[in-house]
Amino acid sequence: MQAEIITIGDEILIGQIIDTNSAYIGKALNSIGVSVYQITSVQDHKQHILKALAEAEANADIIIITGGLGPTKDDITKHTICEYFNDTLVRNASVTKNIKRLWRDYVKQPLQQVNLDQALMPSKAKVLMNRVGSAPGIWIEKAEKVFISMPGVPLEMKTLMQEEVLPKLIKKYKRPFIKHKTLLTYGIGESMLAAKIEDWEDNLPDYIKLAYLPSLGKVRLRLSGKGINAQELSNEIDKQITAVLPLIKEVFVGFEADGELEVLIAKKLTKCHKTLAIAESCTGGKLAETFTQHAGASAYFQGAIVPYKTQSKINILGVSENLIKEHSVVSAAVVEAMAVQCRKLYASDYALATTGNAGPTKGDSEAEIGTVYIAIASEKGVISHKYQLGNNRTRVIKKAVNKALELFKKEIFKN
Amino acid sequence: MQAEIITIGDEILIGQIIDTNSAYIGKALNSIGVSVYQITSVQDHKQHILKALAEAEANADIIIITGGLGPTKDDITKHTICEYFNDTLVRNASVTKNIKRLWRDYVKQPLQQVNLDQALMPSKAKVLMNRVGSAPGIWIEKAEKVFISMPGVPLEMKTLMQEEVLPKLIKKYKRPFIKHKTLLTYGIGESMLAAKIEDWEDNLPDYIKLAYLPSLGKVRLRLSGKGINAQELSNEIDKQITAVLPLIKEVFVGFEADGELEVLIAKKLTKCHKTLAIAESCTGGKLAETFTQHAGASAYFQGAIVPYKTQSKINILGVSENLIKEHSVVSAAVVEAMAVQCRKLYASDYALATTGNAGPTKGDSEAEIGTVYIAIASEKGVISHKYQLGNNRTRVIKKAVNKALELFKKEIFKN
Repeated sequence: MQAEIITIGDEILIGQIIDTNSAYIGKALNSIGVSVYQITSVQDHKQHILKALAEAEANADIIIITGGLGPTKDDITKHTICEYFNDTLVRNASVTKNIKRLWRDYVKQPLQQVNLDQALMPSKAKVLMNRVGSAPGIWIEKAEKVFISMPGVPLEMKTLMQEEVLPKLIKKYKRPFIKHKTLLTYGIGESMLAAKIEDWEDNLPDYIKLAYLPSLGKVRLRLSGKGINAQELSNEIDKQITAVLPLIKEVFVGFEADGELEVLIAKKLTKCHKTLAIAESCTGGKLAETFTQHAGASAYFQGAIVPYKTQSKINILGVSENLIKEHSVVSAAVVEAMAVQCRKLYASDYALATTGNAGPTKGDSEAEIGTVYIAIASEKGVISHKYQLGNNRTRVIKKAVNKALELFKKEIFKN
Repeated sequence: MQAEIITIGDEILIGQIIDTNSAYIGKALNSIGVSVYQITSVQDHKQHILKALAEAEANADIIIITGGLGPTKDDITKHTICEYFNDTLVRNASVTKNIKRLWRDYVKQPLQQVNLDQALMPSKAKVLMNRVGSAPGIWIEKAEKVFISMPGVPLEMKTLMQEEVLPKLIKKYKRPFIKHKTLLTYGIGESMLAAKIEDWEDNLPDYIKLAYLPSLGKVRLRLSGKGINAQELSNEIDKQITAVLPLIKEVFVGFEADGELEVLIAKKLTKCHKTLAIAESCTGGKLAETFTQHAGASAYFQGAIVPYKTQSKINILGVSENLIKEHSVVSAAVVEAMAVQCRKLYASDYALATTGNAGPTKGDSEAEIGTVYIAIASEKGVISHKYQLGNNRTRVIKKAVNKALELFKKEIFKN
């Protein structure tokens, strides 16, 4: 059972937007046992879309198309699909009703003819009703294959995938089981990691593949298996993980399935009724945002201070001016004082603090670009670490956030 | 002059990572007049990669491949390229030297044989030296076409694109000019926008295309043109923009080329020597991070407070407890007090504040999910607005950040 994803839109090919839909669709299809053979992004150009549809029909059983279903003139997907299937457009009453409801309850702006015309659907299509937007999805079967077209707006695509596409695919096709399990490691590079597990890797069964996914300061190690017996597949993957864990125990921090590090931390703090506050200078709000993006943060997250300017470290956070003068604003002494003061101000169990120089130029400190100090304060006292995280601003900030999460996760899972 | 981008890696097809490289490469190629015909993402599978290479060779002049050049066993791109060109691998002395240098100066971990073997290169290839990683790029010419293979690690790919690939392509090919100009609009949907500019759109010359890119609370309107005379192309696009601006004056906020809203704000504040501080509750650090991600933030950004819990709005920010009791924590009175207090604490010219309920459950307030208040404090006093931003947490946070940027941009550009 193979799928191909076709994403349509000049904005993808000229690099104006990043295609995030394909990853979502790939993950969702995998979860029901469908592999994605290929992702193809093409221009808003009829002949090119027709060619991509024909190639996908040759390669895959399920063809999923996103984009180009909007109300404006650059949206040509619906007409092109009609041409591909030698079909015509007919007005669908349920879609018209849905559009009128959306405009009345949510959009609250005048309803245009172009919006009403989104109810024109290929006559051969089953309509996939879009609860959250005006462009419905299209489902057309041809022999044993199915073509599915959805709008490119991520929320609309996701809602249609969950409410319409996945249930229909599950009903229509027999599918194998696909399992992925990903181990998160922090602190060593992929070749060092590969050397540690070489013998184990060489003895993996054929139907389990291993992949290394390196990124800033961490390597994800993914085991992927496919089979017709879900239980056997799970057992074998678990067995392999039990075998590899002792080989990587110094660098292993958790499983991706359990969520990224901040999710593991959030669960642990919530469970233990502990609270966290953050004082972040060089990470500029990103560490707080990493936690608060997830629902339920208010169970443990007290808040943050971003004392970006040196003066605010003194005035607002209450770090001693003399301490800063003596050690400089990027120093172990200052990051520790920041964590301690933050914990006090927010009356939290833990406080995390960062200070450093993310570049590209030096700020209120003579510290080399890429120097970052991270501290954790708790009832046991305060500890800090120094890092050199390179000279690319975006990467320094991301690596500092990852390092802070890594340190803090180790700290709270220690006992 | 057409290019095709092939990205290799199971992690893309199973949705474990989002392919950000293609957008970067697409934008870079456009900047030198090369259009991207198609982006194709394929599995780590030899036959599939060979098929994708053959199809790309049929469609495009320039074939750019990323991914699968790492040192581990799942990296098969180099061997597959060898097979495609009926070539063999030979050890390259300069690459060996570069790898040894990187390990000595940066990696500081034991150098493995697999890393040294990254110096094995197809004999027909020109080596594209990778200053920031161990996998060099590969450049192979075949008749008038060129195949370029780069590692998938974004920083390495970007460095190779800028230092090697773009200069070599400019030297090798005659190229037309491609110009994009994108207008940012906030506040109305794409169909309303389309209705406002319909006559203008219908009269655009053939070689200029218009695209609508809607996202949370904003629509980007992109004009794209291609031609052999750069000056004429620019003049025509400028002429069209002059014609459309009066039609959209209530919703137009700036050009994307000038940067996103926070970049426009940053430039303006820096130029006028004005400063900004932020007190953000429901946006949880994201508004601060939106500013601090860009270099130069310390010129105007004083810092932020994220008073996530109600108690910290009182203790740290100094909002009156009675005011909160009287109006509730999600109210115009409280967001205004937050902005005023924040401006005072940071001694800044402006302060932005947000409070609201991002969901999915209600917090310390009875306010409906999606209710957000935003305030701006300045020497002239304080103003606030109330919004209803839906019931999806991620979208509420993003929309609130976009709204805050929109309001603040209007405020500081008013005079």
